[in-house]
Amino acid sequence: MNSFNSRILKEIEDKQSHLCVGLDINPENFDNANPSIDDLKDHTYKVIDATRDIAVAYKPNLAFFERWGSKGFQWLEETMEYIGSDVITVGDAKRGDIGNTAKQYAMSLFDHFGFDSVTLSPFLGLDSIKPFVDNPNKGAFILCRTSNSSASEIQDMSLESKELLYEQIAKLAVKWNENDNVGLVVGGTVPEEINRVREIAHNLPLLIPGIGAQGGDLKKSMKYGNQNGVALINISRGISFAGDLSEKSIRKSALEYLDKMRDLS
Amino acid sequence: MNSFNSRILKEIEDKQSHLCVGLDINPENFDNANPSIDDLKDHTYKVIDATRDIAVAYKPNLAFFERWGSKGFQWLEETMEYIGSDVITVGDAKRGDIGNTAKQYAMSLFDHFGFDSVTLSPFLGLDSIKPFVDNPNKGAFILCRTSNSSASEIQDMSLESKELLYEQIAKLAVKWNENDNVGLVVGGTVPEEINRVREIAHNLPLLIPGIGAQGGDLKKSMKYGNQNGVALINISRGISFAGDLSEKSIRKSALEYLDKMRDLS
Repeated sequence: MNSFNSRILKEIEDKQSHLCVGLDINPENFDNANPSIDDLKDHTYKVIDATRDIAVAYKPNLAFFERWGSKGFQWLEETMEYIGSDVITVGDAKRGDIGNTAKQYAMSLFDHFGFDSVTLSPFLGLDSIKPFVDNPNKGAFILCRTSNSSASEIQDMSLESKELLYEQIAKLAVKWNENDNVGLVVGGTVPEEINRVREIAHNLPLLIPGIGAQGGDLKKSMKYGNQNGVALINISRGISFAGDLSEKSIRKSALEYLDKMRDLS
Repeated sequence: MNSFNSRILKEIEDKQSHLCVGLDINPENFDNANPSIDDLKDHTYKVIDATRDIAVAYKPNLAFFERWGSKGFQWLEETMEYIGSDVITVGDAKRGDIGNTAKQYAMSLFDHFGFDSVTLSPFLGLDSIKPFVDNPNKGAFILCRTSNSSASEIQDMSLESKELLYEQIAKLAVKWNENDNVGLVVGGTVPEEINRVREIAHNLPLLIPGIGAQGGDLKKSMKYGNQNGVALINISRGISFAGDLSEKSIRKSALEYLDKMRDLS
């Protein structure tokens, strides 16, 4: 069977789409002030139904499920079943722990929930990554330069070598990519950093969040992200909570993003 | 009401104990090759019963619960109820995400599960910490220098200022400690780094894992960790899976660690 990174390449080509739909189903974005878990589930399925044929990947954000405890994890289990195995899934969990614990998280995300890939923090080094990349069919996107405003506090620290920390992480990720299943997360809010990461990490797929509600630059993200490799462009709120929250509005917004991306390809 | 850090101080004094019991209930450590979730629950309660009067804190490791999905989170919900509110709880989650998502994790760990404190990754900067430290009663232990062997790959990177990355993180944590509720995680396997962190971060409580199965240095951890501040010493497998796994063996091991710590105080 093919590696995770070759699967991404193939899916992007087959669907002519770079769209990753983020599932961050926040009750605060509903018209109804107090949606029930069933309301949240229904909305999740609506987003999936509206985008299944054009999304290369779905990225459920674990936090929005964990907020509800065991009931939230039931919702995630059902969501993973609803998505099925035809579309790539990214467990946006940003885990990072010592080897013994990382192994448990890999069992959770890969074996229990069935994700194809995850997002991980690099802060603990290779021990924390290894259990996620031993199987070439499963992938890991390593946080490199994130989209939030305080990211620079740590990730842009200047090293003795004059490089910035995120540049070193991109280099480490290239080293960790022995099984063709490592990618990097770089925010669409920092397109020059996408460009820089692409200079270092040829061929590693990029996962680019921050487009839409966070104000990232779609044009530059597409341009730099798809040089020497491919990029998944994640849209969460901009699709999941588009317009009047109907399936029609959600699909309309997703198609608009898809068209923009195709124009930029 | 008092701040989280002052509560730690008081509990350590009241109980004359620095013991934090880590709840990493791994099925691979059971005699029975395939323990059921009920077996795992029973063992968790046994560990709590055996240590309740001498533990300053319990530190459930989220990964070991998440591995079982919604059923694992039910187990965690029941565990939190079983612990109650008399002993400090640390949700060992090592979360780190953008502000909007960090807020959801804070709702999960503090509001839903009811933890008094959490462990967090500093990799995304203050945005990812803020939702956890706005309430002075709740605390956050920031990963500074972890106990695993590949920690040095990132955390010991030398900065342009000639400092190491973990030293900068200790400085940032001091800055983030506006509400007297920020602590630091430093591994018992790297005692010289505990000493160095203590020089930077006076008065911030330290959470020191890595003693026991990971081979950390208890003597130096107690000595350096309790200079200019206090340390919680975490033991997981060394207590939870002591001897024949009976309540008696677990208590015996916990008391041995307690005695050693008291001798070193």
